[in-house]
Amino acid sequence: MARLKKKILTSNRKRLSAKSHLPSESMVYVGEERTEKMVVKIINYDGNKLEELNVDDINTCKIYSEKDSITWISVTGIHEASKVEEICNLFNVHPLVQEDILNTQQRTKIEEFDNYLFVTFKNIFYSDINKSVETEQISIILGKNYLISFQETDSQLFNEIIRRLHTAKGSIRTKKADYLLYKIMDTAVDQYFVLIDKIGDLVEDIEEETMHYPDNHTSFKIQGIKKELMILSKHILPMREALNKLDSGNSELIEEKSINYFRDVYDHTYQAYDTIENHKSLLNDLMNIYFTTMSNRLNMVMKVLTIISTIFMPLSFLTGVFGMNFKYFPALNNPNGYYYFWGLTILVVLGMMVYFKRKKWF
Amino acid sequence: MARLKKKILTSNRKRLSAKSHLPSESMVYVGEERTEKMVVKIINYDGNKLEELNVDDINTCKIYSEKDSITWISVTGIHEASKVEEICNLFNVHPLVQEDILNTQQRTKIEEFDNYLFVTFKNIFYSDINKSVETEQISIILGKNYLISFQETDSQLFNEIIRRLHTAKGSIRTKKADYLLYKIMDTAVDQYFVLIDKIGDLVEDIEEETMHYPDNHTSFKIQGIKKELMILSKHILPMREALNKLDSGNSELIEEKSINYFRDVYDHTYQAYDTIENHKSLLNDLMNIYFTTMSNRLNMVMKVLTIISTIFMPLSFLTGVFGMNFKYFPALNNPNGYYYFWGLTILVVLGMMVYFKRKKWF
Amino acid sequence: MARLKKKILTSNRKRLSAKSHLPSESMVYVGEERTEKMVVKIINYDGNKLEELNVDDINTCKIYSEKDSITWISVTGIHEASKVEEICNLFNVHPLVQEDILNTQQRTKIEEFDNYLFVTFKNIFYSDINKSVETEQISIILGKNYLISFQETDSQLFNEIIRRLHTAKGSIRTKKADYLLYKIMDTAVDQYFVLIDKIGDLVEDIEEETMHYPDNHTSFKIQGIKKELMILSKHILPMREALNKLDSGNSELIEEKSINYFRDVYDHTYQAYDTIENHKSLLNDLMNIYFTTMSNRLNMVMKVLTIISTIFMPLSFLTGVFGMNFKYFPALNNPNGYYYFWGLTILVVLGMMVYFKRKKWF
Amino acid sequence: MARLKKKILTSNRKRLSAKSHLPSESMVYVGEERTEKMVVKIINYDGNKLEELNVDDINTCKIYSEKDSITWISVTGIHEASKVEEICNLFNVHPLVQEDILNTQQRTKIEEFDNYLFVTFKNIFYSDINKSVETEQISIILGKNYLISFQETDSQLFNEIIRRLHTAKGSIRTKKADYLLYKIMDTAVDQYFVLIDKIGDLVEDIEEETMHYPDNHTSFKIQGIKKELMILSKHILPMREALNKLDSGNSELIEEKSINYFRDVYDHTYQAYDTIENHKSLLNDLMNIYFTTMSNRLNMVMKVLTIISTIFMPLSFLTGVFGMNFKYFPALNNPNGYYYFWGLTILVVLGMMVYFKRKKWF
Amino acid sequence: MARLKKKILTSNRKRLSAKSHLPSESMVYVGEERTEKMVVKIINYDGNKLEELNVDDINTCKIYSEKDSITWISVTGIHEASKVEEICNLFNVHPLVQEDILNTQQRTKIEEFDNYLFVTFKNIFYSDINKSVETEQISIILGKNYLISFQETDSQLFNEIIRRLHTAKGSIRTKKADYLLYKIMDTAVDQYFVLIDKIGDLVEDIEEETMHYPDNHTSFKIQGIKKELMILSKHILPMREALNKLDSGNSELIEEKSINYFRDVYDHTYQAYDTIENHKSLLNDLMNIYFTTMSNRLNMVMKVLTIISTIFMPLSFLTGVFGMNFKYFPALNNPNGYYYFWGLTILVVLGMMVYFKRKKWF
Repeated sequence: MARLKKKILTSNRKRLSAKSHLPSESMVYVGEERTEKMVVKIINYDGNKLEELNVDDINTCKIYSEKDSITWISVTGIHEASKVEEICNLFNVHPLVQEDILNTQQRTKIEEFDNYLFVTFKNIFYSDINKSVETEQISIILGKNYLISFQETDSQLFNEIIRRLHTAKGSIRTKKADYLLYKIMDTAVDQYFVLIDKIGDLVEDIEEETMHYPDNHTSFKIQGIKKELMILSKHILPMREALNKLDSGNSELIEEKSINYFRDVYDHTYQAYDTIENHKSLLNDLMNIYFTTMSNRLNMVMKVLTIISTIFMPLSFLTGVFGMNFKYFPALNNPNGYYYFWGLTILVVLGMMVYFKRKKWF
Repeated sequence: MARLKKKILTSNRKRLSAKSHLPSESMVYVGEERTEKMVVKIINYDGNKLEELNVDDINTCKIYSEKDSITWISVTGIHEASKVEEICNLFNVHPLVQEDILNTQQRTKIEEFDNYLFVTFKNIFYSDINKSVETEQISIILGKNYLISFQETDSQLFNEIIRRLHTAKGSIRTKKADYLLYKIMDTAVDQYFVLIDKIGDLVEDIEEETMHYPDNHTSFKIQGIKKELMILSKHILPMREALNKLDSGNSELIEEKSINYFRDVYDHTYQAYDTIENHKSLLNDLMNIYFTTMSNRLNMVMKVLTIISTIFMPLSFLTGVFGMNFKYFPALNNPNGYYYFWGLTILVVLGMMVYFKRKKWF
Repeated sequence: MARLKKKILTSNRKRLSAKSHLPSESMVYVGEERTEKMVVKIINYDGNKLEELNVDDINTCKIYSEKDSITWISVTGIHEASKVEEICNLFNVHPLVQEDILNTQQRTKIEEFDNYLFVTFKNIFYSDINKSVETEQISIILGKNYLISFQETDSQLFNEIIRRLHTAKGSIRTKKADYLLYKIMDTAVDQYFVLIDKIGDLVEDIEEETMHYPDNHTSFKIQGIKKELMILSKHILPMREALNKLDSGNSELIEEKSINYFRDVYDHTYQAYDTIENHKSLLNDLMNIYFTTMSNRLNMVMKVLTIISTIFMPLSFLTGVFGMNFKYFPALNNPNGYYYFWGLTILVVLGMMVYFKRKKWF
Repeated sequence: MARLKKKILTSNRKRLSAKSHLPSESMVYVGEERTEKMVVKIINYDGNKLEELNVDDINTCKIYSEKDSITWISVTGIHEASKVEEICNLFNVHPLVQEDILNTQQRTKIEEFDNYLFVTFKNIFYSDINKSVETEQISIILGKNYLISFQETDSQLFNEIIRRLHTAKGSIRTKKADYLLYKIMDTAVDQYFVLIDKIGDLVEDIEEETMHYPDNHTSFKIQGIKKELMILSKHILPMREALNKLDSGNSELIEEKSINYFRDVYDHTYQAYDTIENHKSLLNDLMNIYFTTMSNRLNMVMKVLTIISTIFMPLSFLTGVFGMNFKYFPALNNPNGYYYFWGLTILVVLGMMVYFKRKKWF
Repeated sequence: MARLKKKILTSNRKRLSAKSHLPSESMVYVGEERTEKMVVKIINYDGNKLEELNVDDINTCKIYSEKDSITWISVTGIHEASKVEEICNLFNVHPLVQEDILNTQQRTKIEEFDNYLFVTFKNIFYSDINKSVETEQISIILGKNYLISFQETDSQLFNEIIRRLHTAKGSIRTKKADYLLYKIMDTAVDQYFVLIDKIGDLVEDIEEETMHYPDNHTSFKIQGIKKELMILSKHILPMREALNKLDSGNSELIEEKSINYFRDVYDHTYQAYDTIENHKSLLNDLMNIYFTTMSNRLNMVMKVLTIISTIFMPLSFLTGVFGMNFKYFPALNNPNGYYYFWGLTILVVLGMMVYFKRKKWF
């Protein structure tokens, strides 16, 4: 989980001024260096048949997209800027959108253009291979009968959807391209819940720790989880905003009867955000409890010190008195002086104990 | 009360990613395992007569719903997903709504569709049987002349309403289905007040405790109550939002003269929310008071320590002086030295006392 | 003032679930038990004449209300639910409004119906008789030519208005019923200012105390005043909201030229709310100052302890050294050893003093 | 500056319930007692000529105001309520506006009426005569060709504007009455900046103090400045709101081409408010720094105490050991015992020092 | 970075009341004294050709601006108020706009006038020459075919744009004047990212420091960075607002197809603001962690003190006992007394250790 935080924060920071001296229209890939080959896959389907092929010649995409059946052009790897540009130009995608696709630190958004809808968001998932949380940017161009998706890595996000397209399970094959967009976004939001669950476990653990065995690092851990929640909500909040706009909007590319589906995704982001906010508020409360506990411990330590001092200081004074070397010192010569001393000592101790008992110190 | 918190938090968490790898259209029950048989009851009534029957054949529902009189189809137990699906399909309920009915961790909402209104909310109640707070999801489909309710358990929520339908007390029998919906929601909101009252008692107790006998666990308790309030407000807030939308809305299924009734429920949720917010703000203030009290106690402890040390340290020094073994030590040989010593001691003690008195330390 | 808090909080809490098992349409009085007889008074007036009479036969109200002159039906005491119901039915008041009138813990609101406007708010006043702050609910039905007011007790709120109606002072007699409503609400808001003034005095006193002689109870007192402000603002805020809606609204019962008057009351509630918010913010700052003062005191106490310890611990060590009983102990036999000891002692004390002086400890 | 705070808070408080038992239409002056004579001055001007005269007969105002040239009726001193009422009635000013003019604790606002615009705001300025900050209420009635201004004292606010009218400097003489209103408000807002600058100096001083030589009164001072900012923002915020409404509004009395000027004043109030908010936020941060510094000091004091105690307590124990009077005490008879003792002492001291060094305590 | 803060805060403060006694229409330069000569440069271009010339005769500007090709009039240095006024009058710029151009402490804003759009914002950049962060105000008048820019110093902001105009790289030469405005604003916003990156580095450093080696100055540093973020967000926030208004607006000077470009700048300011807010929230959390760490250290110090005191006080008492000089003191004469003493000592130490171990103190 720590890696998630690290990665996002760092990569984000690196970006900020990366492009600042470049002419803004030249297409440049802004992201981690990658060496894998870029793969362009076409999935063309309707209720009756499905065709899946990898293409090298970009123009094939155009041909397929003009068919009546639904065409999904899935581009994996976006570090070959020129190739991405080529595809985008084929579909008359605005230069600024191309820039957004190539810049992997884009803020989640949904923008409508004359002939297409542009959607970009983050896929945050737990990679079983790397045993770590990974983030990749998904950008989608939704046209009339086609959908072009750009993803950074060969993540598992689309696998399940493709499988269901093949098996024609559910109604996905009989629906339009907007339904495909819905499936993709829904799958991504479901991934968020997996992470929120993991963080939820951490919150429960730290609650246990704060309540019962807090130590000096507890506050660090609480802040750490808070930071992770902050990162997640940074991606979920703009997604919710974007979906909300889509809901009320009258986009021609989203059919009216599909609006319900996107509203459903919106509900999920809402719920995700709610859960995150609740976790945050719980963590703030835990921080307060932690402070209280620490302060109570200090109180306890101080009480021990005070009790010890208050008992032994008078006694030490007493021993000091009888340790003085005055020539003329009546008490010392008294044969019972020694016993008187112990009597006095016991009296002092008892007196103190009664005092502390009354003050409810122990 | 503690059980309420536990249960909701846990079940909620379990859910979050439960469905994440399932095709989103397949109907699955998401909730606790249950073994009771699902019961479908039909109550058909108008001003003159009332018919109540349990049905096995789902199609009976359809027949009744097409009558002019009001038909209430009450489904108890929703863990038999296929049966719920069957009923829903009979009334052309949207697949996503079916999903929401089956998912018992749904956020409270009111959604309007072409021929029906979908309402889902939580019934939170104190179960006399289990001696604990329980939560169940109520989902309602409001059609033209019919109302279908889905509830998880055989809770008491509907009992009073059914009883009144039978006795025809009040105007319930002469009103439309939307009035029945109002009665159900009003009853649920009234349940919230019972819980808010219980929490209100806890707040009063903890206020007493914080003011007069705070201990190390007081802050834990304050946070605990705050958490419970958070959970309650989590259910009430979306209910208020939903009712507000209904109020302003121009739904065809809610007659204009019924709007006043829903506005009344809205007012109640508003009041419930206000009370919760006031409790929360009071608890925050109590937390502050607790901190102050603890800090005052520390001050007091430190004062005791300082007074003791300040009095006895100089005295111990004095005894130390007269305990030294110098060969040539004039004071020791003075026959009144011993009395001088006590004089000095008394002077020091008195001086210190004057000092502390002036500083207003006691 | 403390009584105000107590009363409102308690009565409010008692209510919350009081009605939860009652059929919602049956009219029940929810409030404190009262034994006084309910009084119905009719004041009928126009620019020329004024008639004032107490009525026993409710139907007289109806007759008067149909006159062209303004009729004010003032109902004192609402614990006789059936009688209130009777009056309301006479004027076709909606059952839910009747319920609101009888429920003395209603939230302040203004609701418009077809033929009348329903206003309910709290009258908070200092009772000279009981020497305490009292709260009562005022509910008003404003019709075309009539105004029906319901109040819990025979408070002084209406006395001044009635007196002015008699003396025809100001323009009250020549105006419509909506102006009468304005006068009533204006008088109630003026009462709020009296209380805000009283609390303002408390704020000034506690500011003085916090700054110059804070003790352990100061924080309790600050929180106490804050709680009272919270209660006041709980009543003022919804009043402001309601008046704001009235201002923008196009009610047929409020003539356009009367809108200015209600806007004036709105301005007053705004100012009242502003003042309360300022007091609150001041109290929060005082809480901070209190914490600082307490923390400074702790610092001071700790410094005294540290100075004392730092001076006497080395000295005690010295006396200890010269109190050792070694057979061979050169220093002890030195005839000037005793004086050397005192020299050393003075050096240590001076050194410590220079050190503390440099650290600016005193 | 302290006087500013005092004055406003006090006078404000006195007011709140001052009028509460008066019939609301009777015109009463609510403010400090004043004895100066009220002065009514008429300035009538257009591009070509300017006439300035003091009038005793109020009716002269009416005659001038009906001319085509611009007439400014400047009323200084508003404690003669009857005279203010007389003027207002001459121009058909609404009774509630008259009340607002006479009540010197009015909230800043701009209200539009059929034939005139009513503006009231506070002039806060540093009086060179009284060497203190003073507040006075300015009320303005803007009609078609005339402007009536009411001010409490003979402040310098209008002097510069009158001088420029005389010298015909700038375009003021060629513009309409709405431009005159703009000049007056602009001048008042400029006064705010003078005060904000003064407070800005205080903020800088207290920042210096908090960072480098905080003492027990620093927190009091920080809160004091915060309170003054609160008061200023209390006057600026409603002014901004009012100007904003004016900007968007379509008042007939403000010509469209004059809107730019009022937008400019609006920008200034915006900037004033921004600066105040920044100061506030800075003061909050300073409060935090102050707490930290105090807490660091406590830490430091405690470290000194702990180091001293940790070093001398074991040593005192050692001296105690060798001061025991056991008959049989081998060490004491050892001729090198004394030197062994010092060796042990040095070891303990060195050990402690290494320990503290490692813990980075000094 | 510290210099940035200093400069902005100071210059801002100096301004506030600088103009307060000046007639508001007279044009005055409000800013730092400058001695460089003001330079007016004209760049006239279209798709085919580009002409660049410095002009002395202001009227040349007018001639160029009336051409069909795009004319960029770049004014460097605005301290010669009369010259700025001259240019502005040539283009009929409103007097208040002229004032805004000359006042270098203007709030960022975009204002639309009949024939032109007025934009003013801050260019914040790191000067390689002065090795410090500098701020200058850029004001822009966007007309039909022309753009007039005013900048305080000869900063590098425009250099890259001019170079690209010359090389005709990208589409800049073929676009209208509104695209030029976009390029200028985009370049300025990119500069912000450079600074945000620098501050991001500081945040990372201070996070490291707070977590691992906080000292007394850590809190000062955290507050320092927070202050810098506050200043940056002070400039970015109004820019975002202004761009947002532009986006939704229907300005005639911004062609519809250019809106996308400004929306892109808007997205960047949004992202900049998000990053700043995240940094701020992180710094607040660091402050909390710092407090916790400091408080934990205090706890630790107190524990050491308490452990030392609790062990040695009883022991010192013991030595005191055996140091007493009673004539009759059985223990002292016991030949094994000395060993008994050490036995007791070891018992006390072990007992204490077990006690502290159980309390988990070390």
